[in-house]
Amino acid sequence: MKGIVIEKAGGPDVLKLVELDDPPLGDDEVLIRIAATAVNRIDLQCRLFGSRNSFNGGLYIPGLECSGIIIAVGQGVTEWKVGDKVCALLNGAGYAEQVAVSAKMVLPVPSNVPLTHAASLPEAAHNAWKVISEAQLVRGRKLLLHECCGYVGLFVLQMAKCKGAVVYVTAETDEKLDFYKRHGADICINCKNEDLVTRVMEETRMEGIDVVVDSWAVNLEKDLKILSDWGKLLFVDLHGPKGGNLYLTAVMTKQARVQVLNRWWKTLDRAACIVDHLKKEVWPEIENGSVKPVVYETLPLSEAAAAHKLMELTDYGQDMWSVIGYFVPWLGHYACTGKVAGHVMGKILLTPDFEES
Amino acid sequence: MKGIVIEKAGGPDVLKLVELDDPPLGDDEVLIRIAATAVNRIDLQCRLFGSRNSFNGGLYIPGLECSGIIIAVGQGVTEWKVGDKVCALLNGAGYAEQVAVSAKMVLPVPSNVPLTHAASLPEAAHNAWKVISEAQLVRGRKLLLHECCGYVGLFVLQMAKCKGAVVYVTAETDEKLDFYKRHGADICINCKNEDLVTRVMEETRMEGIDVVVDSWAVNLEKDLKILSDWGKLLFVDLHGPKGGNLYLTAVMTKQARVQVLNRWWKTLDRAACIVDHLKKEVWPEIENGSVKPVVYETLPLSEAAAAHKLMELTDYGQDMWSVIGYFVPWLGHYACTGKVAGHVMGKILLTPDFEES
Repeated sequence: MKGIVIEKAGGPDVLKLVELDDPPLGDDEVLIRIAATAVNRIDLQCRLFGSRNSFNGGLYIPGLECSGIIIAVGQGVTEWKVGDKVCALLNGAGYAEQVAVSAKMVLPVPSNVPLTHAASLPEAAHNAWKVISEAQLVRGRKLLLHECCGYVGLFVLQMAKCKGAVVYVTAETDEKLDFYKRHGADICINCKNEDLVTRVMEETRMEGIDVVVDSWAVNLEKDLKILSDWGKLLFVDLHGPKGGNLYLTAVMTKQARVQVLNRWWKTLDRAACIVDHLKKEVWPEIENGSVKPVVYETLPLSEAAAAHKLMELTDYGQDMWSVIGYFVPWLGHYACTGKVAGHVMGKILLTPDFEES
Repeated sequence: MKGIVIEKAGGPDVLKLVELDDPPLGDDEVLIRIAATAVNRIDLQCRLFGSRNSFNGGLYIPGLECSGIIIAVGQGVTEWKVGDKVCALLNGAGYAEQVAVSAKMVLPVPSNVPLTHAASLPEAAHNAWKVISEAQLVRGRKLLLHECCGYVGLFVLQMAKCKGAVVYVTAETDEKLDFYKRHGADICINCKNEDLVTRVMEETRMEGIDVVVDSWAVNLEKDLKILSDWGKLLFVDLHGPKGGNLYLTAVMTKQARVQVLNRWWKTLDRAACIVDHLKKEVWPEIENGSVKPVVYETLPLSEAAAAHKLMELTDYGQDMWSVIGYFVPWLGHYACTGKVAGHVMGKILLTPDFEES
């Protein structure tokens, strides 16, 4: 089969399309013929820095989620059969034509979602579910999403509305605020034109926000000002320059709770538990149309480098580079691994359609 | 009446015993003839830095809790009567012969606690209750207290044992570990002789600690290593050099929850709610002997300066000064506002016994 591999860290051009052996199938695994995979910020970070999913002496195939059709099942698998349309959480290896994955990581494709679009669901749903369960939202509780936290934020926004929360979003352009508004945002704040603290305090009648969600940790000081007493500050992964340094004395005044959520699981059982929650609590909201996947662009897998460039470069405000960018010596310039000012609105998908093309 | 006042920030000698007007009694207040008040670290910080309870243009009387006998009740007070033995949370003004306080801040003296010793209960119980309710302890859950977090830690320790938790404590002397052992600690770790991380990982079979409680934020790196996934890092007030700076990326690996609790309430209703919880959830444990107040020393109110010196200076390890100490210009040296290496084991009480002495 064909697949995209990374041999050494670097810019988008280190993504190489090569011929690979078909993946071996374990007893508890299913083999999926991939219809689509999705580009996640972590793919970019991983490509640039080689961290976490390091290229341990060999090739690394990126890709943390996919959709497709089951073409083989291991001997121990009873819950899935050949022909099932599924999507799955992966530990890499999604940028390829086939992938073998534990049956526990697999989810059905919701009936109202096209097969390829389902590749955009697992990662976002899983991260958003973590935020929603930590946020303990009830009707009327106030949640603020900074720049909507990218695609995960878009899911948090939709799921928070299902819980009856009042959702505040911030962005730096009215175009993005309109986009969030269409997906249910109640209060939209343009941080370029308005003072965040003043506006929030006015809107909340000085009560502040119950839960602030961020991924960049560049607003820490303001976040603590707009947070209500005993409020929660949640971070979904962290893409800021140093991950953000939190001055605990400032946290003390509000007796705030702070938590940084990541997408990693340390055991398969933990992952299976997450998948189970998604099936029970998120999939029904997708089936009934309350939570919708949003696809920004679909590219062939052979253009993975172009997809990474798109995510890195689109509309990226120069003034944000110094805040968010990483200086990468081998690139000779700041590279951003996602965009605050203008990140893509929706998911970028890759389809391994070599036979057809 | 007599009382201790602070006119300007400084060393222990700024505490002056003076003659004051008797406090006026509000409609919803009770007037307490004070049997004892207690020295809290915040008194020392406040004396040194003038922060928070700043001496707003006038005199400030320290003292955040007291015990005594009610000698008058306001017109609106129905739940207390003259002659009742009580203790109370105060917003300052405890270093005196009398204090007027909202009836909502008052608690009965437990039947098995001497009147003066009851002055050591409100602050510690209130802070410990916050920790316990945040820690969500159940039987077998693992809690670690650094240096037992002073007197509050001693209460947390005893209350955690009531909940069936497994309590780990750290200290730098065996004498202190013995003290904590006598009050119920399960695993005692001498951080001078043993490596905290190695010992904890051995004892917990690599599972780590569910809840780490600290007040100094000087162990942040190790705390994150010993914490279990999704564990909690709780700080009770903060006495570290800068309050501690938390690198959020390190928090992410464990998806840890971080919270800094303080002793402040912003409204009387919030304070009343806390007092209510103490009555229902902590006072019964004191009545049945599971949680015991521990008095380290009792001094006359006129010797408040000596009491502050005792808390500042006893056994303070020179090597800790640079970590914990504050350089205070007008003192010309580092002052510590509490001790990590050898803080007093129990509460220091002050009794305004001028008539008797």
